[in-house]
Amino acid sequence: MARYTSMEFLRFLLFDTHHVETIFQYEKYAHLDVEQAWMIIESAKLFADQEMYPYFKILDEQPAVYDGKGGVKTHPQLKKIIQGAAAQSWIGGAAKFEHGGLQLPEMIFNTGHHIFQAANNSVQGYLGLSTGSADLITSFGNQEQIDTYVPPIYEGRWQGTMALTEPQAGSSLSDIITSATPTDNGYYLVKGQKIFISGGQHEAVDNFVHLTLARIEGAPAGVKGISLFIIPKYRPTSDGSLMYNDVHCAGDFQKMGQRGYSTTHLSFGDNDDCRAFLVGEPHKGLSYMFQMMNGARISVGQCAASVAMAAYQASLQYCLERPQGRLASEKDPTKSPTLIINHADVQRMLFTQKSIAEGSLSLAMECNKLYDQVHGSSGEEKDKHLLLLELLTPIVKTYASEHGSRSAALAIQTLGGYGFTTDFPVQQLYRDLKIMSLYEGTTGIQSLDLLGRKVTMQNGKAVKLLINFISTDLQASREFDNLTPYAFELEKELSRMGKVLEHLSGFALKGNIERYLSDATVFMEMAGHIIIAWQWLKMATVAAQKMKESNFSTNSLAFYQGKIHTMEFFFKYELPHAEACARTLEDLHTLTNVNSFEMFQ
Amino acid sequence: MARYTSMEFLRFLLFDTHHVETIFQYEKYAHLDVEQAWMIIESAKLFADQEMYPYFKILDEQPAVYDGKGGVKTHPQLKKIIQGAAAQSWIGGAAKFEHGGLQLPEMIFNTGHHIFQAANNSVQGYLGLSTGSADLITSFGNQEQIDTYVPPIYEGRWQGTMALTEPQAGSSLSDIITSATPTDNGYYLVKGQKIFISGGQHEAVDNFVHLTLARIEGAPAGVKGISLFIIPKYRPTSDGSLMYNDVHCAGDFQKMGQRGYSTTHLSFGDNDDCRAFLVGEPHKGLSYMFQMMNGARISVGQCAASVAMAAYQASLQYCLERPQGRLASEKDPTKSPTLIINHADVQRMLFTQKSIAEGSLSLAMECNKLYDQVHGSSGEEKDKHLLLLELLTPIVKTYASEHGSRSAALAIQTLGGYGFTTDFPVQQLYRDLKIMSLYEGTTGIQSLDLLGRKVTMQNGKAVKLLINFISTDLQASREFDNLTPYAFELEKELSRMGKVLEHLSGFALKGNIERYLSDATVFMEMAGHIIIAWQWLKMATVAAQKMKESNFSTNSLAFYQGKIHTMEFFFKYELPHAEACARTLEDLHTLTNVNSFEMFQ
Repeated sequence: MARYTSMEFLRFLLFDTHHVETIFQYEKYAHLDVEQAWMIIESAKLFADQEMYPYFKILDEQPAVYDGKGGVKTHPQLKKIIQGAAAQSWIGGAAKFEHGGLQLPEMIFNTGHHIFQAANNSVQGYLGLSTGSADLITSFGNQEQIDTYVPPIYEGRWQGTMALTEPQAGSSLSDIITSATPTDNGYYLVKGQKIFISGGQHEAVDNFVHLTLARIEGAPAGVKGISLFIIPKYRPTSDGSLMYNDVHCAGDFQKMGQRGYSTTHLSFGDNDDCRAFLVGEPHKGLSYMFQMMNGARISVGQCAASVAMAAYQASLQYCLERPQGRLASEKDPTKSPTLIINHADVQRMLFTQKSIAEGSLSLAMECNKLYDQVHGSSGEEKDKHLLLLELLTPIVKTYASEHGSRSAALAIQTLGGYGFTTDFPVQQLYRDLKIMSLYEGTTGIQSLDLLGRKVTMQNGKAVKLLINFISTDLQASREFDNLTPYAFELEKELSRMGKVLEHLSGFALKGNIERYLSDATVFMEMAGHIIIAWQWLKMATVAAQKMKESNFSTNSLAFYQGKIHTMEFFFKYELPHAEACARTLEDLHTLTNVNSFEMFQ
Repeated sequence: MARYTSMEFLRFLLFDTHHVETIFQYEKYAHLDVEQAWMIIESAKLFADQEMYPYFKILDEQPAVYDGKGGVKTHPQLKKIIQGAAAQSWIGGAAKFEHGGLQLPEMIFNTGHHIFQAANNSVQGYLGLSTGSADLITSFGNQEQIDTYVPPIYEGRWQGTMALTEPQAGSSLSDIITSATPTDNGYYLVKGQKIFISGGQHEAVDNFVHLTLARIEGAPAGVKGISLFIIPKYRPTSDGSLMYNDVHCAGDFQKMGQRGYSTTHLSFGDNDDCRAFLVGEPHKGLSYMFQMMNGARISVGQCAASVAMAAYQASLQYCLERPQGRLASEKDPTKSPTLIINHADVQRMLFTQKSIAEGSLSLAMECNKLYDQVHGSSGEEKDKHLLLLELLTPIVKTYASEHGSRSAALAIQTLGGYGFTTDFPVQQLYRDLKIMSLYEGTTGIQSLDLLGRKVTMQNGKAVKLLINFISTDLQASREFDNLTPYAFELEKELSRMGKVLEHLSGFALKGNIERYLSDATVFMEMAGHIIIAWQWLKMATVAAQKMKESNFSTNSLAFYQGKIHTMEFFFKYELPHAEACARTLEDLHTLTNVNSFEMFQ
């Protein structure tokens, strides 16, 4: 069977480390049990093995392309994938029973999607967008909107998309100019251009439902004047038929990766007949959209981790099969070459990849769990989980995408020259991965979000909560003599992070917001290392417990040893760079406020 | 004019920082002066502007492809480029007068090639390989071989290549099995397969000259039994005509980058009629080849720096033109968006790129200068320069290729989603750059070379020489109050590196060579940061001198300020990671000698 992820690791994450069974205690998820959960995950693997992974390369070789007249040509397998995934509830499975879903927790639903992301990240995007779009409608739409748009999306007949970006505005949503003019008939007439609309046009569905941000005429400037609309490509008429809604696909961007995924330029209302349906209240569009956006950010982080995992698995397989060279201590050239996995530097590259891919996946699972806890609980517990989730969201998105690229580069490196050729998948995974640091807010945007918004919310409450949350795990680690030094180390790094925040907040307190934020990306880098170190210590603690209890029911002794070993590896090779970031952050010199642009020449 | 490099910076490197005029004091180069040198560089820019840069994208879109019957289809422009470059002496220009060259120092010749690499790195490869091949023949071949093969290569009619890699051996040259059987007619009959032969077959030349490593029957095992041969694709006959020499091109690898550059699989002697001509003495092939290899390693490092420079220039241009968003302190959404270069994080990304690209280019220039000093001088001076060059070669190759990739990733990042599309060159540069860490010995191989061979040669003499060499620059820095703290910082890092080496050599002294070398790549990473910091301090010192003398004859005040600023940036943002590497290297835990492969699962 194709090995692009590790089912052993997924079991370890779900059951041993993050305890999905605790989620089943919530009423919302009480209909599930552990056996069922695993069966669902296994069904995802089977589907991905059969319908997704075999098409990974061909979708790159035969990319989505514009046909010059409004259509985007995509590979025929896409239709089979979307329909098959819909039939197995991989679009609507996390939705509530009342909306036709299976009410699956994200921990399970997103583990299935992790498998899809690792198998074929381009096609998973189509599914994920539909899920998020329908979810947005069920959360904020009215009953008629839900009844009209959600079922066909969940059935894989219609494609949901999110339409935010405009050519002139880019990341600056405050500058959106797509206009919505009210009519007397309950709908708005929309006019404008949107770019980078993933899944905006292709051949596998009958219709598209664009969740679109636009500005109602006379709305306030900035983000406070943005509203959310449903804009179908074909609008349903009273007799049930579909009618063209003046949504024109004007082009499809060609890209260095994710070439199987359409990335469209959409033009709304060229003929003044594009009808849009307001979701919720006017001018609150951005806050609604952020529900989808936050989910998408976690999903992008998880996708980056999944692609890094697929690259790691391909790299590992090669290293286990390829004999080349001899150890430095072997001077006899007539001796057979050794497997390259025996070379120290190859092990370094493998453990680096493993620590990044598995560490990020564990963090994504932590976020999925928090999401489920938010949606299963209420009151103070809910608030606490939400704050933690909001704090960790930009981190999982950024760590996984930035370090995932490093990880995939190492996957190429282990294959030597072969890794650069299209004969092996690692180069495609490397190309695909690069988009993850751009999707749904670039690394720079995520870092501003972390330091400027998340760290500061409720007077720094989220950071305090996180430190308490981590403390519980540290305490569990200290039960094991071999883990105690690492718990100490992590504690030191957390306190270093606290000092850095104190130092930075000095600028903010003096009103110098620019300076407070100027090295936000370096702070993100520091926080990422520390958070992943926490995930590794958590996994190592679970492994130590299993080893102590000789409880190898789900995995082997060596598997658990590997977890402790990779934790040690991360602390030795990766974590020291957090301190380097701290040095940069504590340096008083301001170097990124240059006015004379000639200095860049 | 297309801006893919900075002519201002090249002037600064050649004349202000590395003083090419000192090279003209050697007899070999006494025919040149500064004005001539710059005219030659400008002619390279003109040629690259007209014939290379305009074809950068199209060579990616219409890659070199195998025609199924021994040929590789390449873009017609390639012929124009090779012939034009030959006519302007960009293949043979560095050769001695007696071999038809202009006896240009590498400082000038390779600055021209830097321009080509930045303009169109795929096509520069064809030129560079021809240069290196002919150089190898003039160094070690006999007069007949020189007369036969060198002129047509310099004239751009024949293509030189280096044929080392075999499918089963990869980086392990000791396991080469291509066989050479002596005949009574002075030539050998060769049989074997070579892969990854860049420029091995294309449509722009009449013949190919493969500098090939093979094993003469009965030769000792390992690298001591490898000989160097000239193997033409078509062998010249006594009547001057060419006859097929049983060298078959069996395929062309398709790659994620450098797609305009053919990467062939060659099969020698399928019909037992492949004649090979021994270069120099039997069994000494590897040491000969290492002359070409060392040149190629510097060239790959320089090429990585050049591609990073092209990406930086494209990124800078975008940032100077694109308005988006507002500064954090600007709360009024009705104010016009600012140019993105005004955002602190964008400046961080630009200065990171600048520090990597220009820092690496300066190091490449340092290597080119050492090369010229080796070839211009004799005795102790020559030995000293050679040792320094050998020490710095793996560092320039590795730093530029590994950090160059990071730099090109940041170029993509500054463009946001656009950077991922084929509408902009940065994604192609990012793809192209990835090969640089694999060419001519991977990063792992370079690191073993640095720590295992270069650091240890003549009892560590090279490292001592380097520290003295750097000390001279440190002294010059201390003339300036604003640079003194940085000189102090660099000195601290050099002493830290010394301590790390002492620590590591403890393993070697106990005979544990595996452990001594196990973190060689981390040592390389540390050394790279420190060496580039040295280059920046050197450039900053020159800038400070120019500013003191108000000597802005070649460049503007802001240009020089930018050099000091970028140095400060490098010391704040990059150099702290050297210490992190030291922490890893001094950690006593050995984590890359795992025997149970299940631990990787």
